[in-house]
Amino acid sequence: MNYCGGKIGGGGSDQRGNGGGGPCGACKFLRRKCIKGCIFAPYFDSDQGTVHFAAVHKVFGASNASKLLMRIPAHKRLDAVVTLCYEALARARDPVYGCVAHIFALQQQGVLQFNYLSFTNQVLMRNFGNNG
Amino acid sequence: MNYCGGKIGGGGSDQRGNGGGGPCGACKFLRRKCIKGCIFAPYFDSDQGTVHFAAVHKVFGASNASKLLMRIPAHKRLDAVVTLCYEALARARDPVYGCVAHIFALQQQGVLQFNYLSFTNQVLMRNFGNNG
Repeated sequence: MNYCGGKIGGGGSDQRGNGGGGPCGACKFLRRKCIKGCIFAPYFDSDQGTVHFAAVHKVFGASNASKLLMRIPAHKRLDAVVTLCYEALARARDPVYGCVAHIFALQQQGVLQFNYLSFTNQVLMRNFGNNG
Repeated sequence: MNYCGGKIGGGGSDQRGNGGGGPCGACKFLRRKCIKGCIFAPYFDSDQGTVHFAAVHKVFGASNASKLLMRIPAHKRLDAVVTLCYEALARARDPVYGCVAHIFALQQQGVLQFNYLSFTNQVLMRNFGNNG
């Protein structure tokens, strides 16, 4: 599940978004200079990364996203960015339920599967329960 | 799933959080005057609502949460607040994965259930497949 069209660069944070050239996707969106050590640069490239950062910015805000990443160890930041993008894009598609709609759907699917499993278990037990 | 200890007041937005008395949980947290028509008042009471609004504020920011609610029809805002609280509290507990951890867990559980279902179906088909 990679919803960020960015750099899969791991935990490094001392690189800029566009190979040390132009700004990263976040700084491009924010129209600011992309400094060395930019917290967003390893994860948002200047192409699709800009689109995904726009969603993160709209839902969480650049400042909150930055603070969140700063509190997380560098090697876990890519995962955090992917989940932030996932939540932000889900909220953009469904402003009321966001990604919680996926949780509801999965829970409902789980209940259906559980009911069907209970039924098949009853059939199996009725027919093979006395074989042991 | 109600993660907001607030007013289950439906869609009204012309009430204050504490029965028209003190500030709602959001305004109490933000230390501001709770005006008539406060967007947060119907959903965050001045007790548990303050705690939940603190999480929403930390993750989404008061301004982003307010903008999001303003774009949603009044009768859907309670659902939106509940899902925002759910996401915010999940992110507070797990800064890297937030509520996406629940999606992973449910997906994994679904795969296990599906595999078990496939197995029981095979057993059933092997034993009863020719009965019809």
